[in-house]
Amino acid sequence: MSTLSLKAILLPFAVLGATLPAQADEGQWQPYQLPQLKSELKRIGITIPAEKLADITKHPMNTIVSLGGCSASFVSTDGLVVTNHHCAYGAIQRNSTTAHNYIANGFLAKTRAEELPAGSNQLIYVTDKVENVTDRVLKGLSASLSGRERSEQVEERIKQLIAECEQDKDYRCTVPSFHRGLEYYRIRQLMIRDVRLVYAPTESIGNFGGDIDNFEWPRQTGDFSFLRAYVGKDGRPADPSPDNVPYHSKDFLVVSAEGLVNGDPILLAGYPGRTSRYKLPVEIRFARDATYPKYVAEATADLDVIAQATKGNAEWGVRYANVVKSINNGLKKTQGLLDGFNRKDIAAIKDSQDAEFRQWLAKQPDTAKNNALMADLDAVIAADMALSEQQSAYNVATSSDLLRSARTLYRLALEQQKPDAKREAGYQQRDLSFIKARLSRLEQSFISEVDQARWKAALQRYQKRAAAEHPPALDALLPNADAIAGLYQKSELADTAKRLAWIGKDADSMTKSDDAILQLAIKLNDVAMSLENRRKEVDGNLERVIPQYMQAVIAWKKSQGKPVYPDANSTLRVTYGTVAPYSPRDGISKGPFTTVEGIVEKTTGKEPFDSPKALLDAIKEKRYGGFRDAALGTVPVNFLSSADTTGGNSGSAVMNKRGELVGLNFDSTYESVTKDWYFDPAITRAIHVDIRYMLWVMKEVDHADNLLKEMTIKYPAKKK
Amino acid sequence: MSTLSLKAILLPFAVLGATLPAQADEGQWQPYQLPQLKSELKRIGITIPAEKLADITKHPMNTIVSLGGCSASFVSTDGLVVTNHHCAYGAIQRNSTTAHNYIANGFLAKTRAEELPAGSNQLIYVTDKVENVTDRVLKGLSASLSGRERSEQVEERIKQLIAECEQDKDYRCTVPSFHRGLEYYRIRQLMIRDVRLVYAPTESIGNFGGDIDNFEWPRQTGDFSFLRAYVGKDGRPADPSPDNVPYHSKDFLVVSAEGLVNGDPILLAGYPGRTSRYKLPVEIRFARDATYPKYVAEATADLDVIAQATKGNAEWGVRYANVVKSINNGLKKTQGLLDGFNRKDIAAIKDSQDAEFRQWLAKQPDTAKNNALMADLDAVIAADMALSEQQSAYNVATSSDLLRSARTLYRLALEQQKPDAKREAGYQQRDLSFIKARLSRLEQSFISEVDQARWKAALQRYQKRAAAEHPPALDALLPNADAIAGLYQKSELADTAKRLAWIGKDADSMTKSDDAILQLAIKLNDVAMSLENRRKEVDGNLERVIPQYMQAVIAWKKSQGKPVYPDANSTLRVTYGTVAPYSPRDGISKGPFTTVEGIVEKTTGKEPFDSPKALLDAIKEKRYGGFRDAALGTVPVNFLSSADTTGGNSGSAVMNKRGELVGLNFDSTYESVTKDWYFDPAITRAIHVDIRYMLWVMKEVDHADNLLKEMTIKYPAKKK
Repeated sequence: MSTLSLKAILLPFAVLGATLPAQADEGQWQPYQLPQLKSELKRIGITIPAEKLADITKHPMNTIVSLGGCSASFVSTDGLVVTNHHCAYGAIQRNSTTAHNYIANGFLAKTRAEELPAGSNQLIYVTDKVENVTDRVLKGLSASLSGRERSEQVEERIKQLIAECEQDKDYRCTVPSFHRGLEYYRIRQLMIRDVRLVYAPTESIGNFGGDIDNFEWPRQTGDFSFLRAYVGKDGRPADPSPDNVPYHSKDFLVVSAEGLVNGDPILLAGYPGRTSRYKLPVEIRFARDATYPKYVAEATADLDVIAQATKGNAEWGVRYANVVKSINNGLKKTQGLLDGFNRKDIAAIKDSQDAEFRQWLAKQPDTAKNNALMADLDAVIAADMALSEQQSAYNVATSSDLLRSARTLYRLALEQQKPDAKREAGYQQRDLSFIKARLSRLEQSFISEVDQARWKAALQRYQKRAAAEHPPALDALLPNADAIAGLYQKSELADTAKRLAWIGKDADSMTKSDDAILQLAIKLNDVAMSLENRRKEVDGNLERVIPQYMQAVIAWKKSQGKPVYPDANSTLRVTYGTVAPYSPRDGISKGPFTTVEGIVEKTTGKEPFDSPKALLDAIKEKRYGGFRDAALGTVPVNFLSSADTTGGNSGSAVMNKRGELVGLNFDSTYESVTKDWYFDPAITRAIHVDIRYMLWVMKEVDHADNLLKEMTIKYPAKKK
Repeated sequence: MSTLSLKAILLPFAVLGATLPAQADEGQWQPYQLPQLKSELKRIGITIPAEKLADITKHPMNTIVSLGGCSASFVSTDGLVVTNHHCAYGAIQRNSTTAHNYIANGFLAKTRAEELPAGSNQLIYVTDKVENVTDRVLKGLSASLSGRERSEQVEERIKQLIAECEQDKDYRCTVPSFHRGLEYYRIRQLMIRDVRLVYAPTESIGNFGGDIDNFEWPRQTGDFSFLRAYVGKDGRPADPSPDNVPYHSKDFLVVSAEGLVNGDPILLAGYPGRTSRYKLPVEIRFARDATYPKYVAEATADLDVIAQATKGNAEWGVRYANVVKSINNGLKKTQGLLDGFNRKDIAAIKDSQDAEFRQWLAKQPDTAKNNALMADLDAVIAADMALSEQQSAYNVATSSDLLRSARTLYRLALEQQKPDAKREAGYQQRDLSFIKARLSRLEQSFISEVDQARWKAALQRYQKRAAAEHPPALDALLPNADAIAGLYQKSELADTAKRLAWIGKDADSMTKSDDAILQLAIKLNDVAMSLENRRKEVDGNLERVIPQYMQAVIAWKKSQGKPVYPDANSTLRVTYGTVAPYSPRDGISKGPFTTVEGIVEKTTGKEPFDSPKALLDAIKEKRYGGFRDAALGTVPVNFLSSADTTGGNSGSAVMNKRGELVGLNFDSTYESVTKDWYFDPAITRAIHVDIRYMLWVMKEVDHADNLLKEMTIKYPAKKK
């Protein structure tokens, strides 16, 4: 493959700019793409001009922020940010004590002075610049490079692009790839590091239904809370300090208390994490038949081990509650994926799309080149899958939280032997504070005995894996299951202060230490690096081949009149859709709205279905506070839309046709889970909390009048 | 209470004739009442004149027949009758053999000659005359009668009315009471006793979903089949004979293949069994807190005993399959009632209605009389409830199928000592064939060991009941649980021939027999008769007081502009409603239609979700045979309506606004079960099989072209 052919692929960007109708509701669009979808946006009833939406420095896109893993938006000029309750959960938790249990009771700062530090993990990123840097990343790469060399050269160029950008210390910059390496954009984000908790309803509102209702509909969850961005007196990001002042967010979303009705169009903007919409059928089968079933088996076994190990010890149970919650969440999602694959043969759908594509490709010029491309693609993907199996097995074999910490520390020491610019991404100077936070945070969910039990069981499961999955040379280095207790006894890494003390120490002093876990990490380094380097080789090859494939796919879609959006990659995206019910099975329709009466219906008084008395009273007395929906006759709580979302879209602003805030995204239905692979418009629905419920809770239950006053709320015209 | 006051109550019949709007969709109306509902029928869109519907000798009401427990209707001039699959199940079963399994494979007579005898239990009743005989039943009854005397006098008058009517042997006559004794109508029915099985789809269509889907929605059950009425060559009912000819049903329902859409009006005509809409709050609480929980406990325990007793014996299991099915059905219904009472406090609703009524009554003239009436009512109902507890306990204590047979035989012998006209209803000459059939049928679901085990366990449960529930003198007469096996050994009643041989024998020869079970029945006679006589006393009092209460209720309703329908009593009724979905809980809507694709969705290949290949193929190939619904894009299977139905309405014709057949009623949703007590228009839905599904199965799956040709089917105008 010559660089020329790659360049040729990169030239016709017009492909992405075609103004042709998109397939309804599917797509996580880069803002700049929206003018391509003009007629589609108009068709569903969006009145805000596509050109305006396309400019991330203009309203409303300049109000959409990232919390790193969650999305949010500004709702006042004073840096007030609204997001999900579950996105601010860490901030609520860290401020909660037995005396002031803000999880159980909610929290409301009546004045700015009462706002509480959200903690060092709570950052707000404001995207302010997006540049296409594809040329600077890819131009002139030699065709003769190995996969690893290519990967490393691309990595180095990206690091250079980031370093340039981060000259201004107020910013955090990233250069993610789009279309699996076809394009690269440099994204500059103002990183606000003094964030405070302003308001969160009680967990029995914010997490009503808890894990039981997770991914489910009907849903009646008030999954919202408010944070505020603070900066130094100079208006620039600053370390947390009482002297800081609210960030001046000159643009913010106007809130529409009018809400929506069934069929209304919506816009949704946020930072979706990952999707895999352009994977090949073989990759889907690999996930369906290998990755997911193995994950389910591992997670199920791990949950059993945790349950056994923490049994009868309430404190240990609490320590692992979040771990269990997170595994359960992953398990439910993966089970949903498997159920979905079972319900609809997505691989077969992809087969027929793939066949259609290949037929089209066969009719294009350069047959020999195209054939070679497809053969190359198949080979690279086969290598990717085989390596993934070994990486996954390696993770199982080394699944000790303590060992992972040791690995991080040693790897950091090795990288610090190089000049900063040459260090592996993730181990540079700019990453140190994150590493430190991660190594520090471990203590919140770590008990040595439980960690040992989990690792021991995982090691035994690893031994039963097929030989081809075992990474070369690993088995001989692994401890015997019975030796694990001894290793932990001879390690001090479980002590947070001692663990953190290793940060920045050199590799030599580690080699000399008698910490048994650290010694094991050093011993495993060759295997780990070998896997990492093989990953770079495979990734380099993927990044070489996939973009050519994607280029062909884009051309094929263009021939059908369809623009193409890149897979989600945690960058700012816009999706749109309509408020819509769906039919999970014949004879049943779900949604689009739930109502406050549904809360009463579900309330049992037992967590997660316990509701505050003030809320139940307001419902029983029909104190709807002006937020009654005419069609429903009551206050709506959650609603469904056909918008295209994924993890990372939590907290995303749901806007009406004029770009006014009408809700927050917080989940999607169980039947939708397979959308990460294939967007089925018939059943894919995102779950949003209705702005009217938020405003109603603020007014009737929590009396957050200060915030209601601070926001700009458009109330519907009073009916006679 | 003087007869005069009773007479006064009976005079203003105009109350029932008020032409005022009814509460939407509630009501099982006597046909003659329909002109009162004229504006309501018009409002929902019924175009067939109410006056026409009121005349049971005119189309369409003269096409609606009873199968005794089920409803049906004529669909050709040659006596072709359509009803539910589950209503014709006995006929299908009795003709099925290992070689010709019509349950598993379905049955279709391609010619009249191939039609199979439906058996002596399968009768068709054509109502041809309904007379108000209230005067003849009640006039001149002395006010000084005891309850039992009153009951017996009423009974005797009724028997006289029936005997007169049955002078013509072609007819079966009944004199049911309406409004719990306020009115009596004599109903004359042509009784056709040569009925043949014409067509039934396979059970996997006719009972798709089986017990699992019973009372459930979504539903995709093809619960339909066809019978034919045969009469002698003279056109009059005759015993089954090959010489008989099809009954000439000069009127029949035209079939509309056009079907219905959401919101369309429907009419539903049939023979609903029992409802309790006018019971007092105290009666509802008694059912909710005593009768139903006790029934659930008894049924659950009994099912356990049957399961234990038949365990490992496949043949015994089969023998009790229908018993288990029937208990399960009752259990699910009762559980549904308890769930419903739990979900909605119907007693409280009735409390407030009752309070409203009493307030109104207090403002009426004759305060002293009215107060006395209400006090009388409370006392009589208290007596009724106390007696019910003892009767129920008696039934538990004597719950041996064999003992019940012995009781029937001995009671018959005692009654036969009297002239026929004086015998207890149910033991007259006219009842003999039914008694014989019942005593004969026992063998289909009887195994001595199982019957002993059930009785033994029931006796032990009886012993644990509160002392007040034990009928006086009973306990000393009951056998010890350990003595049961001995009793069965010393009885020959388990032998069908020997059991039947006792029919017509005199009481003396029974007293002399050494059959232990028969002897026990004789020994228990005094207690049984005492309960029966106490029941007559209570019923006589109820029949004296309740009509006065109902009269007041009717006047009260009239003051609100509402006509009143009597509780269902297995007589011909008409109900109406619209095709309508419902919301079982917040955020979910169910119905109104299911589709053939839903069958594919549910099909697992395992009973009760196994579907015939021919059906699945037709669906997969989208061979919709002209029965595709435009809105659904496919063939509808079942649909919901808001019509007011109950047990006995199975097989009822569902008609469109013009009185054309568009479906058959066969079930109602789980949430509707409490409708027997209280009709909640928000959630009460009847489940119907769509005519288009029936016709589609007949055309595409079973090729019942002869029947499609025999019926008069109106097909929709072809769309371009």
